[in-house]
Amino acid sequence: MYPFREGSFAPRNCWYVAAFSTEITEKPLARTILGLPVALYRKADGEAVAVGGRCPHRNFPLGKSTVNGDDIVCGYHGIAFGPDGRCTHIPSQKVVPGTYKIPTYPLVEHGIWLWIWMGDPEKADPSLLPDLEEIGFYTEGTKAEPIFFNEVKCRYQLLNDNLLDLTHLAFLHGTSIGVLENATVPEVVTQDANVLRSRRHIVGAPATPHIQKRFGYTGAVDQVVGMDFYLPSFHAGFSNHIYAADHPELAGEPIQRGLVFHAITPATRTTSYYFFAIATIGEQANVENAKKSLGPVIEEDIFASEEIEKMIELVGGNPTELMIKTDRNAVLGRRMLQAMMDEETEAAKVPA
Amino acid sequence: MYPFREGSFAPRNCWYVAAFSTEITEKPLARTILGLPVALYRKADGEAVAVGGRCPHRNFPLGKSTVNGDDIVCGYHGIAFGPDGRCTHIPSQKVVPGTYKIPTYPLVEHGIWLWIWMGDPEKADPSLLPDLEEIGFYTEGTKAEPIFFNEVKCRYQLLNDNLLDLTHLAFLHGTSIGVLENATVPEVVTQDANVLRSRRHIVGAPATPHIQKRFGYTGAVDQVVGMDFYLPSFHAGFSNHIYAADHPELAGEPIQRGLVFHAITPATRTTSYYFFAIATIGEQANVENAKKSLGPVIEEDIFASEEIEKMIELVGGNPTELMIKTDRNAVLGRRMLQAMMDEETEAAKVPA
Amino acid sequence: MYPFREGSFAPRNCWYVAAFSTEITEKPLARTILGLPVALYRKADGEAVAVGGRCPHRNFPLGKSTVNGDDIVCGYHGIAFGPDGRCTHIPSQKVVPGTYKIPTYPLVEHGIWLWIWMGDPEKADPSLLPDLEEIGFYTEGTKAEPIFFNEVKCRYQLLNDNLLDLTHLAFLHGTSIGVLENATVPEVVTQDANVLRSRRHIVGAPATPHIQKRFGYTGAVDQVVGMDFYLPSFHAGFSNHIYAADHPELAGEPIQRGLVFHAITPATRTTSYYFFAIATIGEQANVENAKKSLGPVIEEDIFASEEIEKMIELVGGNPTELMIKTDRNAVLGRRMLQAMMDEETEAAKVPA
Repeated sequence: MYPFREGSFAPRNCWYVAAFSTEITEKPLARTILGLPVALYRKADGEAVAVGGRCPHRNFPLGKSTVNGDDIVCGYHGIAFGPDGRCTHIPSQKVVPGTYKIPTYPLVEHGIWLWIWMGDPEKADPSLLPDLEEIGFYTEGTKAEPIFFNEVKCRYQLLNDNLLDLTHLAFLHGTSIGVLENATVPEVVTQDANVLRSRRHIVGAPATPHIQKRFGYTGAVDQVVGMDFYLPSFHAGFSNHIYAADHPELAGEPIQRGLVFHAITPATRTTSYYFFAIATIGEQANVENAKKSLGPVIEEDIFASEEIEKMIELVGGNPTELMIKTDRNAVLGRRMLQAMMDEETEAAKVPA
Repeated sequence: MYPFREGSFAPRNCWYVAAFSTEITEKPLARTILGLPVALYRKADGEAVAVGGRCPHRNFPLGKSTVNGDDIVCGYHGIAFGPDGRCTHIPSQKVVPGTYKIPTYPLVEHGIWLWIWMGDPEKADPSLLPDLEEIGFYTEGTKAEPIFFNEVKCRYQLLNDNLLDLTHLAFLHGTSIGVLENATVPEVVTQDANVLRSRRHIVGAPATPHIQKRFGYTGAVDQVVGMDFYLPSFHAGFSNHIYAADHPELAGEPIQRGLVFHAITPATRTTSYYFFAIATIGEQANVENAKKSLGPVIEEDIFASEEIEKMIELVGGNPTELMIKTDRNAVLGRRMLQAMMDEETEAAKVPA
Repeated sequence: MYPFREGSFAPRNCWYVAAFSTEITEKPLARTILGLPVALYRKADGEAVAVGGRCPHRNFPLGKSTVNGDDIVCGYHGIAFGPDGRCTHIPSQKVVPGTYKIPTYPLVEHGIWLWIWMGDPEKADPSLLPDLEEIGFYTEGTKAEPIFFNEVKCRYQLLNDNLLDLTHLAFLHGTSIGVLENATVPEVVTQDANVLRSRRHIVGAPATPHIQKRFGYTGAVDQVVGMDFYLPSFHAGFSNHIYAADHPELAGEPIQRGLVFHAITPATRTTSYYFFAIATIGEQANVENAKKSLGPVIEEDIFASEEIEKMIELVGGNPTELMIKTDRNAVLGRRMLQAMMDEETEAAKVPA
């Protein structure tokens, strides 16, 4: 399906963010991931686990049920399942058939997120998780914090596309975090096995409206904007704003640094979860300010993505696209995802 | 369709509750029953009738029109139809073709309900209605009263299933009318031609939260809980709470008796009407108290049923089910309904 | 699709109202017309233009973007298109391929409306627009004014049908602008190439509830009610109320004159835009009064049309209709529309 090949939706053998760690408690939470119902909860020892979200008895959502010790107990007729998926208790009978079970999904706590593996569990390799060191997660004086969780009415790739083409800052966010140079200055793209990196070095541009408002500074600014796409759908971004060379006293001194994390998870084919986090840096940033200043920005991204989903539904099928040079990064990202999906399709074929 | 065979939805040659009697006046009411539009109203002499709900002229809903004497008059262009379905008046012309008519459906006032027959009218046999004597409707000192009418976003069988497996009281209603013993004590099931009866004798269990709250009694209680399923979708239930044998003074004395009536009617394939009534018994129960105390209980049933409908839509098709011993009653009920549907399908086949 | 032949939806080679003129400014407006996204805006010189509403780069709605001079600029990544559809600017690159363009649609300002041509632009002939002289638009002392714009959840022909059969005034609007005689007095229908005219001369009927209320007059009234249908979906209506012959002093004198304009535009297959305007006549009518008195009337028409749409969806397919004599006008109107569609289908066939 758009923007992938017909029949391609999302890769399965990879890690998706299922929740912020803080969301999961001993009260289960229902999520839909890659079209499947999932229940997330913490065992008595605090470990978070993910099991199939459908009680196989009468289809009640386990994610809207309760937890008893390590077990999840269906809220309808009280059938219990352990974190290994095995049925542990049927209130009305002594014998519990060993074949009674629900799916389980590998779940890893990594950073401030819980990552789920919906594909072949034997392939669930934690070394495929984004390298937190690399994304600056452990930089001294910074602390990552969940900011927004949104259910977005669009296919996940529209949110990926949004983050893979930051020229949109100049237009969609032109009244907050963008300047025209976000669109006109070329980016440098580098591609690793599972990471796609974009860097844009902007010299002597106007301060963004946010910078102007917050620091009362309307002079020229140098900017480095980067976004690292960890496939299939995690984006670590940073922006460094520096007084430009023509500043009499502060040339080269930092104005503001930002470090943000976007995680996108396909819920159904046309809906997604969007987890937005920031790294608070020293005294510069805090959660409440970030919510206030970045709330409207994220809403603009969601607005655009949902409008595009509606447009795709209206015009139907797989609309042809006009390609421009700055699409290179997004097109590369799509190709890498398509390759992951193709590889899975290939592997699923029974050998002759 | 789930939980029936593919292609099976609901039997047609049987009585469904179309409305509480009190709902129907000389102002017509629109309902959708078995996927068909129906208009219900009372003639000048007070008799309630049911006709097709679609004006065959321009498809306006007759159930949102008006009644004039015995006739229903389309609210759009004023075409009138008698309770026999024949067109009686066309405002703009004198001649009314004899072929102009709308469907009519047998409708019987029985108890506090109006029962409709959507199948072959020649087979509409009032002796197939639930025996009100049998369900205690005429017991001296009791009076049946409509309590709730709900439009529920689920296929009707999910509401039947709910009532055919009362082990759910222990979990879904564990904070109101259920105790664990509702799930652990075996039930006795007896099957008649069109009735399926469940009885559960609970001895020396804790008082339900409702009993504790209302009577301030926290000692042991004996309970008899029964539910009689009159196919296709009427359920007469009772619960008797008695001071248990260890009570120093009141052993064997009644604490509370309840008599309830649930009628479920398929509207569309995935929506239903749910008519809930109680029998007020002596001074013990009254309508306002019942609404207050049972409102949240019925909401829990509706919540569960709608969640299951969403789950079925999410996972698609006819999900496999894990069966346990207490499913016997519900499975029997489903089989009896499937047999009714199979018989209708068989009868509809043209003989060779 | 109902009420047309299977596969027939709406003619394309004709003028539809895209907007009231006053709606279109230098800020673009998004509309869906015949299932296609459209963006409407005014150029720097004030001329209104219509272009395809989908940015072909990443499917963002141009109708929710901005205008810069004569160009529409996508709100997502800033790609600009001129009113001739050609891409004029890509912020991130100097070369703009000449093949990059969006559709454009002929748009004509005529009266208080903007008329769009969604079919073959070579056939867009302004002489096919309704003759404003003929509909009394330029009568001295009258001034046309937009009153209501509504998005209606029904296929456009249901709104056409409504206006093509004014016998509904007697029933749907029986408490406001209708009297029984609207249904019982025969109409005179005349048919031109693209216009279908209905006239109904009512003699000595009761005053309508509106007339009674406004003028305190409860005597007999003569009425002339006319509605001219300019295909495919513009209706110019008038009603003249005159003191009847038995009035001692005022016989033959006017009580009230009304001149109204209804424009219907197919948005999607089952949704429509409804533009309602009136001609204020001398001191008699004004916009605020019209909104107050006619608001409930238009709401009744929308109610009926949306209920019928729901009924058609419920019963499925193309329901058979009972035909009566007063359907002649509506049936003629449908046939003329069907003929337009058939002609387009025929013309689209590749010659052998």
